[in-house]
Amino acid sequence: MSPAYDIGIVGAGQLARMTVQAAISLGLRVRVLARRADDGAALVWPEVLIGNPTSRDAVAEMARSCRVLTFDHELVDAAHLAELEAEGRVLAPSARTVAIGQDKWLQRTLLAERGLPTPAFARVESARDLLAFGAAHGWPVVAKAVRGGYDGRGVWMLDEPAVAEPFVVRALAAGTPLLVEERVAIDKELAVLVARRADGETAVYPVVETVQVAGICHEVLAPARIPAATATEARRIALAAAEVIGLTGLLAVELFLADGCLTVNELAARPHNSAHYTIEGCVTSQFENLLRAALDLPLGSTALVAPAAVMVNVLGNGDAADPHTHLAAALAVEGAHVHLYQKEPRPGRKIGHVTVTGDDMDEVRARAWLARERLTGWPKETAE
Amino acid sequence: MSPAYDIGIVGAGQLARMTVQAAISLGLRVRVLARRADDGAALVWPEVLIGNPTSRDAVAEMARSCRVLTFDHELVDAAHLAELEAEGRVLAPSARTVAIGQDKWLQRTLLAERGLPTPAFARVESARDLLAFGAAHGWPVVAKAVRGGYDGRGVWMLDEPAVAEPFVVRALAAGTPLLVEERVAIDKELAVLVARRADGETAVYPVVETVQVAGICHEVLAPARIPAATATEARRIALAAAEVIGLTGLLAVELFLADGCLTVNELAARPHNSAHYTIEGCVTSQFENLLRAALDLPLGSTALVAPAAVMVNVLGNGDAADPHTHLAAALAVEGAHVHLYQKEPRPGRKIGHVTVTGDDMDEVRARAWLARERLTGWPKETAE
Repeated sequence: MSPAYDIGIVGAGQLARMTVQAAISLGLRVRVLARRADDGAALVWPEVLIGNPTSRDAVAEMARSCRVLTFDHELVDAAHLAELEAEGRVLAPSARTVAIGQDKWLQRTLLAERGLPTPAFARVESARDLLAFGAAHGWPVVAKAVRGGYDGRGVWMLDEPAVAEPFVVRALAAGTPLLVEERVAIDKELAVLVARRADGETAVYPVVETVQVAGICHEVLAPARIPAATATEARRIALAAAEVIGLTGLLAVELFLADGCLTVNELAARPHNSAHYTIEGCVTSQFENLLRAALDLPLGSTALVAPAAVMVNVLGNGDAADPHTHLAAALAVEGAHVHLYQKEPRPGRKIGHVTVTGDDMDEVRARAWLARERLTGWPKETAE
Repeated sequence: MSPAYDIGIVGAGQLARMTVQAAISLGLRVRVLARRADDGAALVWPEVLIGNPTSRDAVAEMARSCRVLTFDHELVDAAHLAELEAEGRVLAPSARTVAIGQDKWLQRTLLAERGLPTPAFARVESARDLLAFGAAHGWPVVAKAVRGGYDGRGVWMLDEPAVAEPFVVRALAAGTPLLVEERVAIDKELAVLVARRADGETAVYPVVETVQVAGICHEVLAPARIPAATATEARRIALAAAEVIGLTGLLAVELFLADGCLTVNELAARPHNSAHYTIEGCVTSQFENLLRAALDLPLGSTALVAPAAVMVNVLGNGDAADPHTHLAAALAVEGAHVHLYQKEPRPGRKIGHVTVTGDDMDEVRARAWLARERLTGWPKETAE
């Protein structure tokens, strides 16, 4: 018997929400595994299985009922996914790709073996390892949890041996495996999204600039304001990374640009915040191309539909105001595409985003921020 | 107590389906009244009331539970809607606008009173009325059911008195009220969509060309290839019509162009097939602007995002093949945006559409048709 659904999504946050929105156009039968009935995707989709994404039973039921399984986050059991693959279930990304995504050490070593540029890095088995690395590469250094890092959590900036040593002792004692990297003096942070089918067909989105404040993405500018040769190199690195991890689906590659040189920061094999602008900014959104890649359909054009697109995240700002109360003011901004995820607006939480496209980056950017400020009643955050 | 939903949609066909898809972005709470659980919108939305759109109880329950009520078709009881308004419920469009939409005689007389161009027309109370009209305006003439006409049904071309007389006698005996219009020698058929808020704010979409075969829309070209002055006049007529009918929501105005002169053919106060291209072709889709207009939010830009956009309908072609079996071939066409409504592909039924945008109308049109032909395995229909 053929499965009842074309595709299953494990996890029901805003990435799943925007994926089911894209699936409506193609008339696909989608099932979503949600923790709660009020998860972002579960609020807008009828075919929802309530269950825990770390539950073997729930994920197995999803795999059985869906032709292909995909994920809106990395918090799944990669060993269990490998068992499901051994039973003949189709995952996009594969269990191996998920496992690589969960393990920063494996990511780093695979990229380095392939000759892709990464910051200098080393494993930290003891405080001595880290102190030796700092002595060799200079302070500060960046410590990262090998597993469980997400969205700025699990990354620590260590300024000097006096703070580094007790931190490492504590973290290792708590069972957090660590690696250490040199701190790259960053001129810009960039991101590239790749879609890839099982047969190797790829589509690469434009290189974008991401603006982070306190480890959280606040703003994405497409295309990045960088030399053409740098963009070409960034796309080459992203395509090679997609091949290294055996990608089926989407891969977001975050890059540092420093003194004209690129290094890979992070990988994420799923739809990515840095590509939300593709919904209105590109011919084919990242969400539609995830569906196409996972279902082995021809990939859609990743071309920009305008010279400039800017996405600004809407973060909860602590006053608990529902941004819907300010929706009218935000929509009065010319060309403002407002996306609200129906999440409780806890401080710092991503609860929506705004995209504006147009001819001039500065003008587009100003409009995106104006709409975002009106939505939240909160001024633009800066890194200073 | 405030209503549980922001907006309710009576009817759950593809128009409701694409409206809920747009509502996801804005984070709106939507409820849909569907006849069946497998209606196009009910397949993709969790908040569905199963009921008949002509049932007073079902529509009253929708009106009670939703801040604003809108409609994806005209098959509702306008008198009941007026009662709901008298109780303080908010409808967009209003009961009066719905009533006008259901009555071609009322439409014609209101437009004519306002001085808007219509074909010559007259009421038909007897075969003699029609024969007199034919004698005065020449044969053939067009007879229309005053109520119940939809999408080519309820419209008859009468070539000469010998066929007209028995037809009119039969139709009137069957209780079908009729009007007669002169037959306009059409150079092009055009359509204009207007969005209008209760406060009178309006947004007008580009004038488009529609290509009909046997009374069914096959193709829409945006923008229409007409002189600028004609487009300006078409937009003026559409705005005036929206005012005449007291529009809140969307109004599609279908126009005939003959010898450089425009006449109004039909009005429809809802999202319209002729504006499906706006999903990818305009800054703001007709579906988002319906939501904005109905909920009294600022209207979005109606500007085209590319010089040309073409939409081609996907019709069931009688071989009962699910177009999903050809999806891969269709998506291989560069820039093809495929929309499938998950409807049974009965012959002649609209089961999806394809939109392509780009710089050159002929090239865009060729790609849209190629994708449509691949989806259906059926060549392009022509009017000949």
